Amino acid sequence: MDMADLGAQLAEVVGAAHALTGAAISADYAHDESLSFPAQAPACLVRPADAEQVAAVLKLAAAAGTPVTARGSGSGMCGAATPVPEGIVLSFERMNSIVDVDPVNFVAVVQPGVTLSELDEALAGHGLTYPVYPGELSATVGGTVATNAGGMRAVRYGVTRANVLGLQLALPDGELIRTGGPIAKCSTGYDLTQLVIGSEGTLALVTEATLKLHPRLPHQQTVLAPFTDLDEVIRAVPRILAAGLAPHILEYIDALTMAAITHTTNLTLGVPDQVRDTAQAYLVVALENRDADRLAEDVNAVAEMLAGDLGAMDAYVLDGPAAHKLIEAREKAFWTAKAAGAQEIIDVVVPRGAMPEFFATVRKLAQDTGSGAVGCGHAGDGNVHLAIFQADEQVRHELLHGIFAAGVAAGGAISGEHGIGREKKSHFQALENPAKLALMRRLKLAFDPDGVLNPGVLFD
Amino acid sequence: MDMADLGAQLAEVVGAAHALTGAAISADYAHDESLSFPAQAPACLVRPADAEQVAAVLKLAAAAGTPVTARGSGSGMCGAATPVPEGIVLSFERMNSIVDVDPVNFVAVVQPGVTLSELDEALAGHGLTYPVYPGELSATVGGTVATNAGGMRAVRYGVTRANVLGLQLALPDGELIRTGGPIAKCSTGYDLTQLVIGSEGTLALVTEATLKLHPRLPHQQTVLAPFTDLDEVIRAVPRILAAGLAPHILEYIDALTMAAITHTTNLTLGVPDQVRDTAQAYLVVALENRDADRLAEDVNAVAEMLAGDLGAMDAYVLDGPAAHKLIEAREKAFWTAKAAGAQEIIDVVVPRGAMPEFFATVRKLAQDTGSGAVGCGHAGDGNVHLAIFQADEQVRHELLHGIFAAGVAAGGAISGEHGIGREKKSHFQALENPAKLALMRRLKLAFDPDGVLNPGVLFD
Repeated sequence: MDMADLGAQLAEVVGAAHALTGAAISADYAHDESLSFPAQAPACLVRPADAEQVAAVLKLAAAAGTPVTARGSGSGMCGAATPVPEGIVLSFERMNSIVDVDPVNFVAVVQPGVTLSELDEALAGHGLTYPVYPGELSATVGGTVATNAGGMRAVRYGVTRANVLGLQLALPDGELIRTGGPIAKCSTGYDLTQLVIGSEGTLALVTEATLKLHPRLPHQQTVLAPFTDLDEVIRAVPRILAAGLAPHILEYIDALTMAAITHTTNLTLGVPDQVRDTAQAYLVVALENRDADRLAEDVNAVAEMLAGDLGAMDAYVLDGPAAHKLIEAREKAFWTAKAAGAQEIIDVVVPRGAMPEFFATVRKLAQDTGSGAVGCGHAGDGNVHLAIFQADEQVRHELLHGIFAAGVAAGGAISGEHGIGREKKSHFQALENPAKLALMRRLKLAFDPDGVLNPGVLFD
Repeated sequence: MDMADLGAQLAEVVGAAHALTGAAISADYAHDESLSFPAQAPACLVRPADAEQVAAVLKLAAAAGTPVTARGSGSGMCGAATPVPEGIVLSFERMNSIVDVDPVNFVAVVQPGVTLSELDEALAGHGLTYPVYPGELSATVGGTVATNAGGMRAVRYGVTRANVLGLQLALPDGELIRTGGPIAKCSTGYDLTQLVIGSEGTLALVTEATLKLHPRLPHQQTVLAPFTDLDEVIRAVPRILAAGLAPHILEYIDALTMAAITHTTNLTLGVPDQVRDTAQAYLVVALENRDADRLAEDVNAVAEMLAGDLGAMDAYVLDGPAAHKLIEAREKAFWTAKAAGAQEIIDVVVPRGAMPEFFATVRKLAQDTGSGAVGCGHAGDGNVHLAIFQADEQVRHELLHGIFAAGVAAGGAISGEHGIGREKKSHFQALENPAKLALMRRLKLAFDPDGVLNPGVLFD
């Protein structure tokens, strides 16, 4: 079938105003936030209004053998929302309703196009929170499910995987199924919810998600501790966690990245010049509590640990606005790196105890190739966000391969929360066990025998 | 191939002392703790020593088309470890080493035959805990992964699914693969770890597990609150959770079950006779803290809430030994019900807010069929454990079907933590969406094209 015929059929499903082709499609739909994967305009854009329309679009696409790439707000980092030229972009922008907020079961039911900030706003009045904050609050719930998004609070609340209880899914054969539900547990057949989370739009499309909510603790405070050595930052992490203080943010920021984000945002943190000049890295520890007095006690305990046994140069308890700005600046580190000319942003995850060794390898690989590799990341999770500066594509590819291989060799993985997408696929294919890749391909076929869902992502 | 030839080949792999056939196999291997699924002696028992032997056994079995049923300690509740007569039981009893306890990454690496009590003992000295306590601490880690076991502490720490970071798996084609690892997060291809958890030995066999550990909080206390109405118990639950008190145990026990477990264990709880005579149900709330003073404050807060707004008849803070005995008696409720002549134990999960309505349906169904249906369960999780008393098999089947259907209609599932196994398969097949079942079957084929792994479990 040619695209004109398919386009006409798609227009019957979603309405002519929401089935666009060719030049009528905004350039925004041609890319996500991947720094290195090139934009590619799709042949067609559809904006379904409900789950039934999504299923009908998939069925038509499967019959025509036309690829479908799902899109939330396009804030993904790896090209997973970048369409293929002959394909359809299925945008969830019209499916943006919060269907239910349930304060008895601590559950929200939302359509995939709801953004994290919209959800957060709706939950605030209920004293509840959905704790997935991947830095970009314009991200949609559907997009975060597709990538298994993480973010700073994962050290306490887990990543997306830990906070999605159920899904409604459109399968490529046009069926709609429900998995899981507003329940805390389920041992009733295979867990399709978990399989689809993190599958980057390659297995099924999420048409509704049931999310786990948590009490919104009213009191927060943040401690900033400069260190003369990045490895010491990392060694402090298990000590803080073992004390049972349960921080909800536990981030490291290297000195260069701190300089960049404070400069970009005009942020002053009360760190004396001579400390700032000597510090090689910072640890940011944020605590929250339902009780203000307990929080103050815990913050003092953390600050004393840091400036004492844990070897920080000092420990500053930030006032509310400064803390807020620092966290916001940290969240925008990607944009700072992009503005500074980084060619790539990666997020290798390693066992947190392996971070010093991993950093040493990264430094050596960067030095050997004349590249820059600086960053910040989720110290509690071993999730290392590196901005890579290396203009030569071939050298950069080899550098990335070396960094990913070091992460895998340390017991980690190529990506902790960004995903593989189109951008890192060749590394994934090269570094993963062939038997495991073959099994993943068979799973892909079990969902999508015609290969219409996001071809080129994860696999060739 | 006949079993004698296969037996000889298996003996070459695992050693003659560990490949037994016929009458040489102890009757213990013929069943698990399902009350209703009959014992079936297997044709062969193998006891591999390591992952490579497991993989080799699977490869031989697949070539011969002979079914393989994995077995931990046989404490499963649904016949998933009951072998088929012509098949092999693969017992993990020799693979019972704790490979590593890592206090930096809060991770334990264990072989599948390690029991939860062995693991707990090894972790105590490190100040760490693996928080999956499904009542039966003789359960093996492999078995708990297969069923996605839950237990009382899931209300705070989640079920098995939330606490397994990685697996080594033997596939039916004889390949060994590793999934996940000692890392907190991973967005690198499909999550095979999560897919295998809860798959009841039908997709792959776990030959090693990497488990997430938590700080072992030193102080615990337990509050017992009698209520005149079971529904009021349930309505108290979200209020306690919303207060951010994060109990690690939040159980309801109906009056009959409380009478039975206290009688069986000679347990006195300091509840006055006139309260006990009027109480229809109890709520058990256990809290833990790293700080004794905070714990005492929180326990008082819970007790005041319960005896105040939440409508309990009173709230008793149990002393250490009484609390321990009560929790232990609650854990043994299965054995109490079995001794009392229950024909079935089930564990439907519903949204916790739907529990009163679900209880009403169960009461009506039991009354209409002249059956007994009493129990206790994880009130925080909506996980209702019912002992079913109905000797007539056909009537019981219809009663169970009605109860499961009511659970599913309420947004829940047939099983929260026990699994489906052989015992509940017909209900699962009857109540589940056919498109979803068909997809699950395709996933099964992607792992196990010859159908050798635990045939008869989940599917016919």
